[in-house]
Amino acid sequence: MGDSFVPTRDDHFSFGLWTVGWQGRDPFGDATRAPLDPVYAVHRLAELGAWGVTFHDDDLIPFGSDEAAREATLKRFRAALDETGMVVEMITTNLFTHPVFKEGAFTANDRSVRRYALRKTLRNIDLAAELGAQIFVAWGGREGAESDAAKDVRAALDRMKEAFDIFCDYVTERGYPIKFAIEPKPNEPRGDILLPTIGHALAFINELEHPEMVGVNPEVGHETMAGLNVMHGYAQALWAKKLFHIDLNGQHGLKYDQDLRFGAADLKSSFFLVDLLEAAGYEGARHFDFKPLRAEDPEGVWVSAAACMRTYLILRAKAKAWRADAEVREALAAAGVPDLSQPTLAPGETIAELLADPTAYEQFDVEAAGRRATNIERLDQLALDHILGAR
Amino acid sequence: MGDSFVPTRDDHFSFGLWTVGWQGRDPFGDATRAPLDPVYAVHRLAELGAWGVTFHDDDLIPFGSDEAAREATLKRFRAALDETGMVVEMITTNLFTHPVFKEGAFTANDRSVRRYALRKTLRNIDLAAELGAQIFVAWGGREGAESDAAKDVRAALDRMKEAFDIFCDYVTERGYPIKFAIEPKPNEPRGDILLPTIGHALAFINELEHPEMVGVNPEVGHETMAGLNVMHGYAQALWAKKLFHIDLNGQHGLKYDQDLRFGAADLKSSFFLVDLLEAAGYEGARHFDFKPLRAEDPEGVWVSAAACMRTYLILRAKAKAWRADAEVREALAAAGVPDLSQPTLAPGETIAELLADPTAYEQFDVEAAGRRATNIERLDQLALDHILGAR
Amino acid sequence: MGDSFVPTRDDHFSFGLWTVGWQGRDPFGDATRAPLDPVYAVHRLAELGAWGVTFHDDDLIPFGSDEAAREATLKRFRAALDETGMVVEMITTNLFTHPVFKEGAFTANDRSVRRYALRKTLRNIDLAAELGAQIFVAWGGREGAESDAAKDVRAALDRMKEAFDIFCDYVTERGYPIKFAIEPKPNEPRGDILLPTIGHALAFINELEHPEMVGVNPEVGHETMAGLNVMHGYAQALWAKKLFHIDLNGQHGLKYDQDLRFGAADLKSSFFLVDLLEAAGYEGARHFDFKPLRAEDPEGVWVSAAACMRTYLILRAKAKAWRADAEVREALAAAGVPDLSQPTLAPGETIAELLADPTAYEQFDVEAAGRRATNIERLDQLALDHILGAR
Amino acid sequence: MGDSFVPTRDDHFSFGLWTVGWQGRDPFGDATRAPLDPVYAVHRLAELGAWGVTFHDDDLIPFGSDEAAREATLKRFRAALDETGMVVEMITTNLFTHPVFKEGAFTANDRSVRRYALRKTLRNIDLAAELGAQIFVAWGGREGAESDAAKDVRAALDRMKEAFDIFCDYVTERGYPIKFAIEPKPNEPRGDILLPTIGHALAFINELEHPEMVGVNPEVGHETMAGLNVMHGYAQALWAKKLFHIDLNGQHGLKYDQDLRFGAADLKSSFFLVDLLEAAGYEGARHFDFKPLRAEDPEGVWVSAAACMRTYLILRAKAKAWRADAEVREALAAAGVPDLSQPTLAPGETIAELLADPTAYEQFDVEAAGRRATNIERLDQLALDHILGAR
Repeated sequence: MGDSFVPTRDDHFSFGLWTVGWQGRDPFGDATRAPLDPVYAVHRLAELGAWGVTFHDDDLIPFGSDEAAREATLKRFRAALDETGMVVEMITTNLFTHPVFKEGAFTANDRSVRRYALRKTLRNIDLAAELGAQIFVAWGGREGAESDAAKDVRAALDRMKEAFDIFCDYVTERGYPIKFAIEPKPNEPRGDILLPTIGHALAFINELEHPEMVGVNPEVGHETMAGLNVMHGYAQALWAKKLFHIDLNGQHGLKYDQDLRFGAADLKSSFFLVDLLEAAGYEGARHFDFKPLRAEDPEGVWVSAAACMRTYLILRAKAKAWRADAEVREALAAAGVPDLSQPTLAPGETIAELLADPTAYEQFDVEAAGRRATNIERLDQLALDHILGAR
Repeated sequence: MGDSFVPTRDDHFSFGLWTVGWQGRDPFGDATRAPLDPVYAVHRLAELGAWGVTFHDDDLIPFGSDEAAREATLKRFRAALDETGMVVEMITTNLFTHPVFKEGAFTANDRSVRRYALRKTLRNIDLAAELGAQIFVAWGGREGAESDAAKDVRAALDRMKEAFDIFCDYVTERGYPIKFAIEPKPNEPRGDILLPTIGHALAFINELEHPEMVGVNPEVGHETMAGLNVMHGYAQALWAKKLFHIDLNGQHGLKYDQDLRFGAADLKSSFFLVDLLEAAGYEGARHFDFKPLRAEDPEGVWVSAAACMRTYLILRAKAKAWRADAEVREALAAAGVPDLSQPTLAPGETIAELLADPTAYEQFDVEAAGRRATNIERLDQLALDHILGAR
Repeated sequence: MGDSFVPTRDDHFSFGLWTVGWQGRDPFGDATRAPLDPVYAVHRLAELGAWGVTFHDDDLIPFGSDEAAREATLKRFRAALDETGMVVEMITTNLFTHPVFKEGAFTANDRSVRRYALRKTLRNIDLAAELGAQIFVAWGGREGAESDAAKDVRAALDRMKEAFDIFCDYVTERGYPIKFAIEPKPNEPRGDILLPTIGHALAFINELEHPEMVGVNPEVGHETMAGLNVMHGYAQALWAKKLFHIDLNGQHGLKYDQDLRFGAADLKSSFFLVDLLEAAGYEGARHFDFKPLRAEDPEGVWVSAAACMRTYLILRAKAKAWRADAEVREALAAAGVPDLSQPTLAPGETIAELLADPTAYEQFDVEAAGRRATNIERLDQLALDHILGAR
Repeated sequence: MGDSFVPTRDDHFSFGLWTVGWQGRDPFGDATRAPLDPVYAVHRLAELGAWGVTFHDDDLIPFGSDEAAREATLKRFRAALDETGMVVEMITTNLFTHPVFKEGAFTANDRSVRRYALRKTLRNIDLAAELGAQIFVAWGGREGAESDAAKDVRAALDRMKEAFDIFCDYVTERGYPIKFAIEPKPNEPRGDILLPTIGHALAFINELEHPEMVGVNPEVGHETMAGLNVMHGYAQALWAKKLFHIDLNGQHGLKYDQDLRFGAADLKSSFFLVDLLEAAGYEGARHFDFKPLRAEDPEGVWVSAAACMRTYLILRAKAKAWRADAEVREALAAAGVPDLSQPTLAPGETIAELLADPTAYEQFDVEAAGRRATNIERLDQLALDHILGAR
C-alpha cells in the first residue's frame, strides 16, 4: 500500500473551527493552548487539503461583540475564504457555553431564556444564509436534565418542536436554501440530553410540521457513548433519507466525550462506516468534529487534523479494495449478504399465497435450516485482513 | 406508611409466562428449576393479585407440537383463564430460541428463514385474536449482527418494514382488533440488535405503511443497557402517542440482560417512571418482564413476582403523595417546571414579532439570567425524601 | 420516620473546599458561579453541621502565590477554623489543573515535570502536618494516557512507586503522623488513568516499600464509572485494612464524572454502602466529594451540601433499623448470610481429613443442593421495603 | 505484507476445549451445534498449528461420570495428545454449570457447597498434575451476588482466601509443580462477581499465605467489560510479576460476555496488547478463550479458531516492525516515552537534595513546561499506519 493519502478539495473534508481551535480546557484543567485566529485556521486547513470549515456563531464572533466588531471579523474571515477557496459548508449555534443556557436553551424552564435562544439562532441562520452554508446543525447540548424531577420531558419536546417549526418557517419565508440537521448525544454536559441517539432524533423529526427540512448530524463518538453500533445508526439515518451531515471522530466506549481524531479508537468500526458512506453515495461533507489532545502543543493540532483526513483516505481505499476483491464477493455471497435485498414475498405474491405455500412452513425443514452454514467468521476475518493490509 | 400494598385486578398487573416460568438456564449454567405448567402459573398469579398473562407461542405450546397437542393445551389453558378470570392481554412470537433463527428471523440473510418467520408470526396473530389479546409484541432478538461485514443494515430495515407491512395488512384484512408494539433492545443475544432503542423503533415505525397500527413496548432494562434515561425514553414514546405496552423490570447498568424484578436496581428512576405512567394516564397493562434469580427455588419465584407488584404499588402511592405535597408543588414552581408547558411564542405571536421584541434579545440581561436560581437540588432532594419515606 | 436528620460534629461530616467552591465550569460551559472565599465556606459548612474541611493546596492558596500572600491566606483560614471549631482532616495536592501536568505528574514522560510534581507534593505534606491533617490523599488525575503508544505503563508504575516511596520516607523522617490514601479513577480527564479501581490501587500499594503507610480513598462515582459494585469495592478495601478515607457522592453509570450529591443516583447502593461503613465500624471522616449542579445559584450550593448529610443520616438510621429488624435477621439466616462467616474447614480439620470425608463429596447430594431454597429475592425485597420506608 | 501467517507449535498457541466445543446455547437460544468430541478437537487444533489445549474437568469428563468412564475417557484423550504432540498446558475447574453452584462455590453461603467445591477442585488438581499442566486457572464465575443484602463480601473474601490457602498447601504437600492463576471478571453470570478486575485479583493474592504461588489469568473481554484499558491491566500484572497465563479474545465494550475471536473487536488495543506481551518477553501460552459465533456451523468453528492465530501472528509481525521502524523510534523519543524509565531522582540523590535543587521548583518554568510539545498524536498515528499496513 503506497503512501498517496494526501487530501484534495475534491475529498470534501471540513473541520469545525472549534476543533483545531480547542484550547484544551477540560473539567480538571486550564487551557494549554492560546486562542487560535479563525483566519489562520482557514489558511492552515486549506494548506492541509481541507475543503471547508464550519463553526458556531461564537467561535468566529465572540459572544457579546458589537455590530462593528462583528462586521470587521466577518470581513477578515470572508477574505480568508476567498484567498483559500475554502467554503463554509455548515453553521451551528452555541447554545451551551454561556451561563444563561445552564438549564437549557429551547427547552429551558425559563421562558425568557427560550426566547433568547430562538433569537440567537434566528440571527445565526441569517449568517448561514449570508455565508452560503446550506446545512444548519443544531446540537442541544444543554437540553436535558440531571434530575428527573426538574424537567417535564413531554413539555420539553413540545418546546423543541416549537423551535424547529419556527426555524423551518423562517427559512421558508426568507427563501434560504438551508436544511437543518439535529445532532444527537446521550449525555454530557447534561446528565441526560433529550434526543439522545440517532433514533430519537429521527423519531422527533417525524413530529415536526416540516419533517422534510430536517435531518440528522450523527457523531461517531456520541453514538459510541450510548454503546450503540455506529455503522448501524448511520445506516438507519441513510435508510430514512435523513443523513444530512456527519461528525467524524473517535471514542473509546462509555466515558466522557473524548472527541479523538477519526480512526483513533475503533478502527474496524471506522472502516465499516467509511465503507457505508462510500457505498451509499453519501454526498455531504466529510466533517471532522474532534479535539486534538489537550497535551499537544499548537503544531500537534495540525498533525492531528492531517491525520483525520489521512485515515479517512486510507480507509476509503481499503473499502474500495474490499468491495473489489473477488474472494470477498464470493464470501459475501456465501454468507447470504446480497440475498437480504431480495423481498421476502415473491413479486406480486399475496399474504394468502404465502399462507398457502407449504414450503414456507409445513414442509420447511427447520432442523436443517438450523444447521446451515452462515460463514460469518470467514467474512469478518477477510475484513480484518483488508483493514490490516494482510492481503 | 401502612402496609396495604396488595394488588387487585384493577391494578392491571400482568406477567409473561416466560418470567415465572424461567428455568434459570444461563450462558454458564444449567436449569435450576423444573418446567412450570402454564396452567399452574395462571392460578398462582391470579392468587397473587395479577390481572393478566402474556406469552410467546412456544411458552404455551411447545415448538413442533402437532395440532392435537396444540388444541389440548389451549383447551386446558382457556379453562384456567375462565376459572381465574385472568386475561391474555398480549401475545408475542418466539423468533429466537430455535437454531433456525440463529442469523435472524424477518431479517435473516436466508430468505426461506424469513418466510418461515412470517408464517410463524401470522399463525400466532390468529391465536392472539382467538384469545382476545389486543396487543401483539414483536421483539426482534435475533435481528442483528456481530459482524458489520455480514449484514446489510439498510436491506435489513427494508425486510423489517416488509414484515410489519404484511402484519398490518393481515390484521386489517381479518378485522382483528390488534395493534403491534415493537420492543427495542440494543444487544444480546446478538452483538448489536436492529432498532436498539425506543427512538430507533419510533423512527422505524414512521416508515411503515400503517404507522398508526404500530407502537412500542419499551423495557426498563433494555433502555438501561444503552445507558439511557428510562423515564425520558418512555416520555418520548408517550409524546409520540406510541406507548402501546410496557415491560417493567430492573437492570444494573451496562452488562448482560439481568431482568431483575421491578425496582430492584435503580429505585429513583423506577419512582419517576411510575410517576410518569400515572401522571400521563397510561392505560395499558402494568406488565412485568423479569426473571426470578436463577438461585431461587420454585417458591422464590412467587415471592419475586409478588414483590414486583408490591413495589409498583408502593411507588404509585409515593408518586401520588409527591404530586399532592404542597411543598413539592411550590418547589416545582420555584424550579420553573410548570412554566415549560407555556409556549415560547405568545399566543398568535409571529416570528416577525419575536424578532421585533427587544426584551427577547437586545435588552435581555444574559448575565442576570445566567445567575438565576434554578432550585433543582432542592426539588430533587424532596423527591429523595418522598422515596425514602422521610417526610 | 420523623425529621431529625440534622447533622452534628459527632457525625464527622467533611467537605472538600473544591466541592462547594466549584464554579460550574465544564467542558462545554463557562463558570456560572463566582469564586467562593474558603473562609466563608468554612463558616457556612460549620453552620450546616459539618465537622471538617479538606482541600487541594491550590484551592486555598492560588497557584503561584508568593510567600506573603500564602501566609496571609493561611492566617485567615486558621482563624476561621478556630472560630468554627472545624478541622482539616485531609489535604491533597492539585497535580492536574495547570498545563504543566498535561501529560502527567509523577508519571509524566518529562522528568523535570516529575521532579516539580514531587516538590509540589512535599511542600503540601508540610502544610498538611502544619494544619494537623492526618490523611493525605493522592488522586493521580493526569497519570494516564489517551494513546497506548505514548506511555510505558510498567515504567510509569515504577515512577509512581518511586514517588510514594519518597513520600513515605519523608513523613517518616519528619515524624509526621500522616498516612496516604490513593484515590482510584478509571478515566477522565485522561482517556485511561493508571490505578483505575480500588483493586488496582490496593495491588499497587503492596509493591511499595512501606505499604502499611498507604491506603485507599475510594469514591462512589469513580467505581461506578467502571461499572463495578460500589459496596463490593469498599468491602474489599476494608477487608485489606486499607480504607483510610472515603469520597461520597453519586453517579449515574458510565458517563462523564458527575459528582452528584450523595444518594442522588443509586439509592439502594448508597444504602448498602452506609450499612457497610456503619457495620464495619469505619472510623474515618464521612467525606463528600460532589459538585453542586452547574445550574444552581450560590444558595443552591448549600442546599445540596446539606442534602448530602441529610441523606447519609437517613440511610444510617435505616441501616440501623434494618439490622435491628427481627424479620430481617430471620431472612438473613434463611438466606445463609451469617453462615458464610463460618470457615469451610472444621476447626483443626486438615486437607487429608477433608479428602476423607465422604459427606463432602462422595455422598453429597448435588441434585438436592441444586434445588435448595436461597431466599435472596425475599431478603432483597425486605431491604427495598426498609429503604422505601414501607415497613 | 506477504501471507505467511501460518502458526507452528513454537508459537505456543492453545485453546480451551470449551471454545471450539461451544454448542451455541445462549440465554435466548438452544444449541446450534452438536457436542464435539475432545479427541477430534485435539486433532483438528493440532492440524491448524496449535500447540496445546486446556479444559475444565467437565469439558473432558462429563459431570457425574463414574470411575470407569472417567478412565476410559482419559485414556482416549491421552492417546490423542500422544498422537498429535499437543500438550495440556492448563487445567481449570467447572464450578458454575451445575445448579449446586447457583449461589457460589468457594463463597457459597451454604457450607456444604463450599466443601464440595473444594473437593471437586482438589480432585482436578490431581488431574492437572497427572497430565502435566503447570497452570491451574480459577475463574470464580458464581462467586458473587445480585443483591447487596445477600452476601457478606468480607466473609466471602475470607472464604476465598481459605480456599486458595488450602490449594497452595495441597500442591506443596504433594510436590506438584503447579501454579494458580485467578481469572477476574466483573459480572456475568452473577450480577457482580468478586475479584472483578486484574487489580482486585492482584490485591487479593497479596493477602494469601503463599502469594508467590498465585498469579492472574486476565481475559481481554473481561477487562473490556469493566471499561478498562486492556493493555494497562496486563502491564500492571506483568509489573507485579503475576501474569501467569492469558485469555485472548474480543469484546465490543460493555455488554454481555461476547468472547469474540481475538482481534475481532478492538484492533488497535489488540495490537498494543501483542506488542506488550512480545516486548515484555511473556513466555506463557498464547491461549484463546473465545466462542465461535452461535450462527456458525461446525466448519465455521475451525475457521474462527484459525483466524485467532492468524490475527495474533499478523499483529506480532506488525509489533516487530513497529519497534524496528526508525521513524517510530524517533517519534517515541520525541514523545519522551523512553525517558519515563529514568528514575525521577538522580542516582543516589536524597530527598534533602531534591528539596535543595532550585531547578526542580523555584526556578522551574512551569509556563514553558505547560506549552511544551508532547507529540502524542503523531506517534499514535504512526501506530495506526503500522496497524493499517499504510507504511
